[in-house]
Amino acid sequence: MSKQILLKQDEMPTSWYNVIPDLPGPPTPVLHPATLQPVTPDDLTPLFPMGLIGQEVSGERWTAIPQEILDIYAIWRPTPLVRATRLEKVLDTPAHIYFKNESVSPAGSHKPNTAVAQAYYNKIEGTKRLVTETGAGQWGSALSLACNFFDLELQVFMVKVSYQQKPYRRSLIQTWGAKVFPSPSDQTNYGRQLLEQDPDNPGSLGIAISEAVEKAATDPEAHYSLGSVLNHVCMHQTIVGLEAKKQMEMAGEYPDVVIGCVGGGSNFAGIAFPFVPDKADGKSVRLLGAEPASCPTLTKGKYTFDFGDTARMAPIVKMHTLGHDFVPPGIHAGGLRYHGDSPLVCQLVDAGVIEARAHQQLSCFEAAVLFARSEGIIPAPETSHAIRAAIDEALEAKKLGEKRVILFNFSGHGHFDMGSYDAYFSGELKDFDYPEAKIKAALANLPQVNM
Amino acid sequence: MSKQILLKQDEMPTSWYNVIPDLPGPPTPVLHPATLQPVTPDDLTPLFPMGLIGQEVSGERWTAIPQEILDIYAIWRPTPLVRATRLEKVLDTPAHIYFKNESVSPAGSHKPNTAVAQAYYNKIEGTKRLVTETGAGQWGSALSLACNFFDLELQVFMVKVSYQQKPYRRSLIQTWGAKVFPSPSDQTNYGRQLLEQDPDNPGSLGIAISEAVEKAATDPEAHYSLGSVLNHVCMHQTIVGLEAKKQMEMAGEYPDVVIGCVGGGSNFAGIAFPFVPDKADGKSVRLLGAEPASCPTLTKGKYTFDFGDTARMAPIVKMHTLGHDFVPPGIHAGGLRYHGDSPLVCQLVDAGVIEARAHQQLSCFEAAVLFARSEGIIPAPETSHAIRAAIDEALEAKKLGEKRVILFNFSGHGHFDMGSYDAYFSGELKDFDYPEAKIKAALANLPQVNM
Repeated sequence: MSKQILLKQDEMPTSWYNVIPDLPGPPTPVLHPATLQPVTPDDLTPLFPMGLIGQEVSGERWTAIPQEILDIYAIWRPTPLVRATRLEKVLDTPAHIYFKNESVSPAGSHKPNTAVAQAYYNKIEGTKRLVTETGAGQWGSALSLACNFFDLELQVFMVKVSYQQKPYRRSLIQTWGAKVFPSPSDQTNYGRQLLEQDPDNPGSLGIAISEAVEKAATDPEAHYSLGSVLNHVCMHQTIVGLEAKKQMEMAGEYPDVVIGCVGGGSNFAGIAFPFVPDKADGKSVRLLGAEPASCPTLTKGKYTFDFGDTARMAPIVKMHTLGHDFVPPGIHAGGLRYHGDSPLVCQLVDAGVIEARAHQQLSCFEAAVLFARSEGIIPAPETSHAIRAAIDEALEAKKLGEKRVILFNFSGHGHFDMGSYDAYFSGELKDFDYPEAKIKAALANLPQVNM
Repeated sequence: MSKQILLKQDEMPTSWYNVIPDLPGPPTPVLHPATLQPVTPDDLTPLFPMGLIGQEVSGERWTAIPQEILDIYAIWRPTPLVRATRLEKVLDTPAHIYFKNESVSPAGSHKPNTAVAQAYYNKIEGTKRLVTETGAGQWGSALSLACNFFDLELQVFMVKVSYQQKPYRRSLIQTWGAKVFPSPSDQTNYGRQLLEQDPDNPGSLGIAISEAVEKAATDPEAHYSLGSVLNHVCMHQTIVGLEAKKQMEMAGEYPDVVIGCVGGGSNFAGIAFPFVPDKADGKSVRLLGAEPASCPTLTKGKYTFDFGDTARMAPIVKMHTLGHDFVPPGIHAGGLRYHGDSPLVCQLVDAGVIEARAHQQLSCFEAAVLFARSEGIIPAPETSHAIRAAIDEALEAKKLGEKRVILFNFSGHGHFDMGSYDAYFSGELKDFDYPEAKIKAALANLPQVNM
């Protein structure tokens, strides 16, 4: 039988894990987008509270989770670890497949793990409102949930085409009390300028980030919030891997491979980072990031300095990048359409600690449907990449006739993505060719950094 | 802090509870719609497997749950019991509010508790496919999930207007592998006849039932399946209340009032029936059904014999009815729009063991939003009726300055009902006047039964 391995509430981890002291070298510097000089904490204070800036640069391995955050986590945490025996049976594999079910949060994904933390640190430093951007709405809904718990106002700039085509995540954001603006909007100079040029501008994540940053920077009572990429976001997500390690121990197993999908990298970091020190201690565990073939940052990107955003307003970081003005094809896993990745994840990929693999969207939906029909739960399109990778590992183990223990992060459910399943079943969904020319062009346009 | 009270998997109940031996009198008879004579098991064999027919008429208090069903339940059960301390704080009430979270099943509601059992008993007796109807899709998706686990085919007749307007539950049904037909369809004589009269017939639950029953009765390899009302369905749902009782004990409390929303009655039966023997033993516990004011069967219906369906093809049962041809106003809690109720629930209401209260839709959405903003989870419109009743109890306790322990069933999430939240926030949603004339007319049209 498929079996849930459940921690008691008092067994929930009480500290987050920071991978920085366990990196193979010092963390790479973060540069100011205008001066190209290393960013100082002062540069960040208009956007973030000191509590999060401190975490961003911290060299401490462990950070105690404040009780107020643990109290909110307790609404859905600890999350179940599940042995996917039905999936194993369908695949007829000797592999053991475990998944950590982060879809049980009220927002339906892992995102609230950091949203709640970010809302808390802003609240205690007197921030009145947060501003953020969202693509399809996963992050916007998670932050709306979190801000609601701490009586913080929230303004969300949602990519206009998603605002119109995916109304239900927008409804979710509103139900939890946040304001949502279709981006480009009339709320910012940048947005007004774009609307003047083209009132029908469909928006993009890059534009939405620029609007959110402008709004936060120009409102003295507001701060900005980002749902992935940054070091403190990765750290907040490690509660996932820390719980999973305990639960694997309860199951009497240790993973041969740990898998997560990679967009900005925090989801993958959450499940994988807690295993990094084990690897350094000589344990045999592979850490595998699953990314989309049409936005293959870790497998095809260049490891170099690049802007975090399209509009060149965000800091420059060292990462695997496809170029900051690369616009990925419109795959349904919107959360994985980012031109770069978390610098921490990238540094570990570069050092060979983490490996990565890219998957085509049709093979991911095939995996998602197989999972839904064996384990019952409907995966988000992003999550389907991790499932594809886990299934491939299980099939390889079958071919080699070896037992292999596979752990992957089930990062979110697909309840608000059923339209993409319709497209898959109707045959409308397609794979995209590797956008070689576009990536080459974008990579010719990197900032000139001498480091 | 809001606290989850979790059972371990080996603490999951292994028997269902049958309320029949604890009724205040013998169960009321079920009559054949054509002969008006008591139905025999033989009358039911074209539609149901013997295992379920046996449960329908069983006088045994306990029925062991087969291991194969427990194995599937283990995918999401035991479900959490949650002390809603944040909601208590917002209400500033001395009451303690607990909810049983049935929304964590893959289908998002309590429905799989019986869907899995029905699929199992059909499977072991050699049924090749099941046929059912669904309104908004809650039941259809739950049965699709269940049939998938047992490699049973499933055909779902979905009310055409829902098929068109609520495509995502349809997608869910398809993702788990069932066939969905918009009803009226060209799959049955009855459907073809209706389409000939009016190709744009929007359908109704009554029509969909008639099509499903016709299809099942005329296909020797098929059986019919119903998601509520029947005795065996109520029994399967008692796993909810049995778990909740254990969990309340773990919390060191006993409920003063147990609440569930009532459509066909099985959800309410699930949480409330296990408390019926306690009441007989002199324990002070109120059992409260929450129903919609626009379809107020328990509070305004007549306790008498009536057809279970609009087309007069289903058996006649004794229940609180608004008349089998009463069509309730189009409230968003589609699952509560039934003209009758479970005969077991009705018999206990008639005997004064169970009480009921009716709520207007706007006050229910107000309660749902208050809940979403305090406890995080988005309720289904049906569930919002139970929340409204729980909040009213908590506010009354506050007024009286008394501690009151409230337990309600959080029967399902609203992820596929966000359109109704949009309607609520935009001000489009309205209350309906009590449809007095329509109910009076429908009640004039009852079958002539001399019992």
